[in-house]
Amino acid sequence: MSPRRSVAAARDTREAIVKRAVDVASTDGLEGLSFGKLADGLQMSKAGVAGHFGSKEALQLAALEEAVAVFERRVWQPAAHHSPGLERLLATAQAWTEYLGGDCFPGGCFLTAAAAEFDGRPGPLRDALAANAKRWRWVLIQEVEAAAASGELPADTDPGQVAFELAALAAGANQDRQLHGDELAAPRALKAMRRVLSA
Amino acid sequence: MSPRRSVAAARDTREAIVKRAVDVASTDGLEGLSFGKLADGLQMSKAGVAGHFGSKEALQLAALEEAVAVFERRVWQPAAHHSPGLERLLATAQAWTEYLGGDCFPGGCFLTAAAAEFDGRPGPLRDALAANAKRWRWVLIQEVEAAAASGELPADTDPGQVAFELAALAAGANQDRQLHGDELAAPRALKAMRRVLSA
Repeated sequence: MSPRRSVAAARDTREAIVKRAVDVASTDGLEGLSFGKLADGLQMSKAGVAGHFGSKEALQLAALEEAVAVFERRVWQPAAHHSPGLERLLATAQAWTEYLGGDCFPGGCFLTAAAAEFDGRPGPLRDALAANAKRWRWVLIQEVEAAAASGELPADTDPGQVAFELAALAAGANQDRQLHGDELAAPRALKAMRRVLSA
Repeated sequence: MSPRRSVAAARDTREAIVKRAVDVASTDGLEGLSFGKLADGLQMSKAGVAGHFGSKEALQLAALEEAVAVFERRVWQPAAHHSPGLERLLATAQAWTEYLGGDCFPGGCFLTAAAAEFDGRPGPLRDALAANAKRWRWVLIQEVEAAAASGELPADTDPGQVAFELAALAAGANQDRQLHGDELAAPRALKAMRRVLSA
């Protein structure tokens, strides 16, 4: 194998491991990840899997990064080309609830599950989860501010309150869908998000 | 020790273990419980702790049962003596958000965390969590129906939608409080719950 080809092959293998890790972690939790479990699923050796990451924490962080990329692709990108403000918020609500009602990860929204798992455990994973959640909240707040500035929402709108409510409705939809298999949860969240955005 | 006294002592010890288990599980997850960890914290032998439960799953179920009892004591009991319908819903919203903004468990709402942890793992724990969540949702729906029947809420109110939104706002408040230490989360949830109940 040429050096270039072997670098590409290593990258492909790493990607395959990370994708598998995201699926496993979405049902078993990030703590439930192990090199051995992934190796079994991918018909690789445990050392072969471990060699791509070095530590379990590095594997967990790689899975988290991949889950963030999936979220952005599914939720933010479909909305990003809309006009800033209300139009983009409504497009985000649509894409977000489609993501929550879909089967993107076997165990539901990876980021919500991981946040619940690690919010009480200080360390790099909690920091990465908190930073990601903050960044997404900031995006929502920016859009609400744009909508309030242009008169699409009342001038006295509290952007933090609106963004909180949108995120809460998403968390609630994920919870109902995952715990009860409730297919009404995502449409209910969308209906409520639209009402929040029509205030 | 008389037999009666030893039964009481065993009950007290079991209670102390369960209380400790709830605290540990609220930060480390139900999966993070172990007889050894609890034994260390309580200065007991591992076998001494295990003898009260037999299996890790029995310990996890006991912790869950205790957390449900705490939730009922903190959230439902303060509201229960109010008149059915809107008054009781508003009292529930108040008590629920106080519980979420308080320090009842070191890792935040035990039941929300446990649901996120086990929603993808079939078995007795998931069943118990789902049954408990269903029961609480049913209580909320009954109250919304009472409020709609008496004209406190519009006659065409969708009780499932209202109950979903209340539960989602609670889940969102717990998430923000635990992940970001956001003290505004519980007041924001209360404000939004009141708005949902004034529709």
